[in-house]
Amino acid sequence: MPHDVLLAEATRGNRVESRHYGAAVVVDAAGKTVFAAGDVETAIYPRSTVKALQALPLLTEGAADKYALGPDALALACASHQGEPAHIAVATEMLARTGRDATSLECGTHWPLDARAARALAASGEQACALHNCCSGKHAGFVCLSCATGHDPEHYIRPEHPVMQTVARTLEDVTGVPHTDANRGTDGCAIPTWAIPLRALALAYARFATGQNLNTDRAQAAAQLRSAIAANPFMIAGTNQFDTRVMQDLAPRVFTKMGAEGVMVAMLPEKGLGIAIKCRDGGVRAAEATAAALIARFGNESSPVLTHFMRQTLKNWNGQSVGEFRVSATLAEDCYPSIAS
Amino acid sequence: MPHDVLLAEATRGNRVESRHYGAAVVVDAAGKTVFAAGDVETAIYPRSTVKALQALPLLTEGAADKYALGPDALALACASHQGEPAHIAVATEMLARTGRDATSLECGTHWPLDARAARALAASGEQACALHNCCSGKHAGFVCLSCATGHDPEHYIRPEHPVMQTVARTLEDVTGVPHTDANRGTDGCAIPTWAIPLRALALAYARFATGQNLNTDRAQAAAQLRSAIAANPFMIAGTNQFDTRVMQDLAPRVFTKMGAEGVMVAMLPEKGLGIAIKCRDGGVRAAEATAAALIARFGNESSPVLTHFMRQTLKNWNGQSVGEFRVSATLAEDCYPSIAS
Repeated sequence: MPHDVLLAEATRGNRVESRHYGAAVVVDAAGKTVFAAGDVETAIYPRSTVKALQALPLLTEGAADKYALGPDALALACASHQGEPAHIAVATEMLARTGRDATSLECGTHWPLDARAARALAASGEQACALHNCCSGKHAGFVCLSCATGHDPEHYIRPEHPVMQTVARTLEDVTGVPHTDANRGTDGCAIPTWAIPLRALALAYARFATGQNLNTDRAQAAAQLRSAIAANPFMIAGTNQFDTRVMQDLAPRVFTKMGAEGVMVAMLPEKGLGIAIKCRDGGVRAAEATAAALIARFGNESSPVLTHFMRQTLKNWNGQSVGEFRVSATLAEDCYPSIAS
Repeated sequence: MPHDVLLAEATRGNRVESRHYGAAVVVDAAGKTVFAAGDVETAIYPRSTVKALQALPLLTEGAADKYALGPDALALACASHQGEPAHIAVATEMLARTGRDATSLECGTHWPLDARAARALAASGEQACALHNCCSGKHAGFVCLSCATGHDPEHYIRPEHPVMQTVARTLEDVTGVPHTDANRGTDGCAIPTWAIPLRALALAYARFATGQNLNTDRAQAAAQLRSAIAANPFMIAGTNQFDTRVMQDLAPRVFTKMGAEGVMVAMLPEKGLGIAIKCRDGGVRAAEATAAALIARFGNESSPVLTHFMRQTLKNWNGQSVGEFRVSATLAEDCYPSIAS
């Protein structure tokens, strides 16, 4: 099994201060590996990177139609949002369409991840609720799916609930990897997460990006979700977030989705490619830098946002430059020679 | 040069999800290496771990006496605090003793790192100022040092200012490593930070812990700072922070100080030892787990707080166990066999 590679590093003054290692893979919808670096075969937990795959049944099972979910709601169902007012409004409306509210969400409560949103909520005298959980859009989608298919949503987070069974079968089909008790863990928002090889994660998104090797219903659902996300990049994350910034600039040619513990996926529909990255230490910043570099190279994209995430100046609280965070020289030379000084 | 070693890992379900590599070293005040793992010779930026060393001139130059700084102020001068009301009150008072206020601080402004403190500040309708910067106690100390020694504090953050010259000479003497333009970077709070080998950082703290190989003034100042920190572990960090929790339990036998980008130091005065750790990817959680294990082993300490940081259950937002974060099996076996299951 190949060793992990240097993905990205932080510098300060004239030295490298910190280094991140991990793996990255680019595959097409037929399963051909276009690029691989590091260990892409060991199973990893994809965490929130599979949200768009988990949202497929929302369309294929008729829930989106039944509750007339618009593109903003479909995008939020695929999101790790920052708990900003626009996110909360859409999640609230999704639940209202089923006649339910935040008490049906089983994701748990945390304060908005966006610091300004958290302070504004506190200043208003309100408390955080499950709607502010970064996964509330996905969970509102599960409630919609449950209600639309005639199941009581209570305990929808459990592996044996019909909603989670439908989600598991979808993930299994699209990734080509069995989803069983043997590879099941529990995610931060309480639903199951199944460990799969990084290569299988990239393959699933090559299929999602193109519709190839998906059945007709899923291919149509994937196209509808891509369209919804491309039209609503703010819904998928929020202010100043990587996914939002990249897709505001480059969708629908480029889609990205971060996951906890340094996982990242991207899709390049026009190129027919899916990308998956795992920073082995869980470092999100390294997964972002690597994703930017691979998108630049394999998407043949050039954009200030990508350049920023490949090589950004680090500033102190006075705004002075103190160093930079950059994709590793090896990946930079491979991916975007102009920034490899 | 030895390769870095596995310091700590996060698990989920029945798998390892993320891994952190780095280096750790334990030395005595004579410079004898008691334990070393990974690359302990390459220079690293010690970041906030040197704050107690930077505070020595506050005592040796007479500023603490002149302004009658109490143990809480001395501890805050060594702190990376969370911006909680008690921290702000002490920093404000330190500046007031010199006839100055927050406008003399050159560390820059950010909102309190403690989320509750940030929300409470927002709810009160106030804005963050330089006092909330996690380094404001250190900077208030620099203002005190500058005023006490007859220098205008303006631009005290610059390498050529008398305050920073005094600090640099102190660091140079105590660590035994030249502090020049060649190894100088700029820290997040705008003052210089000089890269030194991890081994030299541990040596400096073995000296600080014991007074050995320090001149008499510095040895007395170190003892006074140790005493101040031991009496005020909340001042050094804040609610739920590693340093505060460990020292509330184990000071004055154990001192710890975290730094940005995964650096950590500890002192075991009764054992005559200094400890320094660098998690190569910058992961604070791994530096904490490693520090806990090395303190348990080389301090011969047994405490629920150390056990917690060596092997803690990770919970989701519903409070369910989903995995654990733990020091690597190798370090655990070396350091604390009872937790290496």
